[in-house]
Amino acid sequence: MNDDLTVPELQRRLAEFAAARNWQPFHTPKNLASALSVEAGELLEIFQWLTPEQAAAVMTDPDTAHRVRDEVADVLAYLLQLCTVLEVEPLRALAEKIERNESRFPAA
Amino acid sequence: MNDDLTVPELQRRLAEFAAARNWQPFHTPKNLASALSVEAGELLEIFQWLTPEQAAAVMTDPDTAHRVRDEVADVLAYLLQLCTVLEVEPLRALAEKIERNESRFPAA
Amino acid sequence: MNDDLTVPELQRRLAEFAAARNWQPFHTPKNLASALSVEAGELLEIFQWLTPEQAAAVMTDPDTAHRVRDEVADVLAYLLQLCTVLEVEPLRALAEKIERNESRFPAA
Amino acid sequence: MNDDLTVPELQRRLAEFAAARNWQPFHTPKNLASALSVEAGELLEIFQWLTPEQAAAVMTDPDTAHRVRDEVADVLAYLLQLCTVLEVEPLRALAEKIERNESRFPAA
Repeated sequence: MNDDLTVPELQRRLAEFAAARNWQPFHTPKNLASALSVEAGELLEIFQWLTPEQAAAVMTDPDTAHRVRDEVADVLAYLLQLCTVLEVEPLRALAEKIERNESRFPAA
Repeated sequence: MNDDLTVPELQRRLAEFAAARNWQPFHTPKNLASALSVEAGELLEIFQWLTPEQAAAVMTDPDTAHRVRDEVADVLAYLLQLCTVLEVEPLRALAEKIERNESRFPAA
Repeated sequence: MNDDLTVPELQRRLAEFAAARNWQPFHTPKNLASALSVEAGELLEIFQWLTPEQAAAVMTDPDTAHRVRDEVADVLAYLLQLCTVLEVEPLRALAEKIERNESRFPAA
Repeated sequence: MNDDLTVPELQRRLAEFAAARNWQPFHTPKNLASALSVEAGELLEIFQWLTPEQAAAVMTDPDTAHRVRDEVADVLAYLLQLCTVLEVEPLRALAEKIERNESRFPAA
């Protein structure tokens, strides 16, 4: 397994994966934003009928833990592919948002 | 600005931000999964009435480009906070998923 | 106020409203399905940080109650418009689904 | 098949169905709003990779048409159950929203 776990490297591998299957025509911004929302729904589905207590213990069951990691991966995959096509740097966008929020919501 | 743009560093800053505002009680897995889904919807909202061509040009308008980066940041923020509370490593989860998909969908 | 509160009558009023504003070109099935999902997210947003107890009391605050009714209306509006363009009868689809579920999930 | 296809009658049947399976404890407003959002995502999933032209033809394939009706039913089921627990009248909420929108967006 390639252990270079950085966002740009994963974006490169996702692009290579899509190109090898001729999936790029489907990867428009609008389609990727839809797919991201659909996958976020699938992640939420795991939690929808659980009490807060059950939801907090969700990783103690190996099958559910696998399902959580799988859906987290899908959400991240579409988010990174959307960022690639829109030329948005996701980590920089988040760092800038945290800074704006530090002004908007001063700590007590 | 802190320029250490890595996922663990951003997770640390998000946790610090939430702790300074006593927001941790709200950051249950179920609430974070809901918030992630809500923010993915806000990102999709930017594209919902656009033609594929308009959607592809969305970053040429500075205000819309800012809105896109802002919503990407919100989706990533909740995804990373969910990963923190569930002790999921998001980049590793994605790398493993890409490998599983390479077996499931062999390239032509 | 027109008090004929039936699904077909509301579908007729929604179609008339869209036609009067030349919005039909935007009301493709794909766009309407996106808008429905976005509005369902806005409805969920009202509940996302609430405890189960707070969520159960959400209609006791007049402003929140208004917001709930407003988002319920938006979800229903896009669902009905999607059904109009796809020629799906929503109440019949639900009645048939309940019957299928009665077989799938026998009562104890 | 019971052919009384009205919203109150379907709400009554959904409540009866849930009661016969002891599902009411799960049907909190927060859980139902989550489930509604998840099902709206499943409906969107049908359209996510389609071109606008393919999406417009989605009902010509019997299997896809069945899937669309099935997901429409699921969205409506959770919307109506949410309205039941919150004591919101969905058709009235929509009629009032259309009237507000007629003021907000005057026709050309």
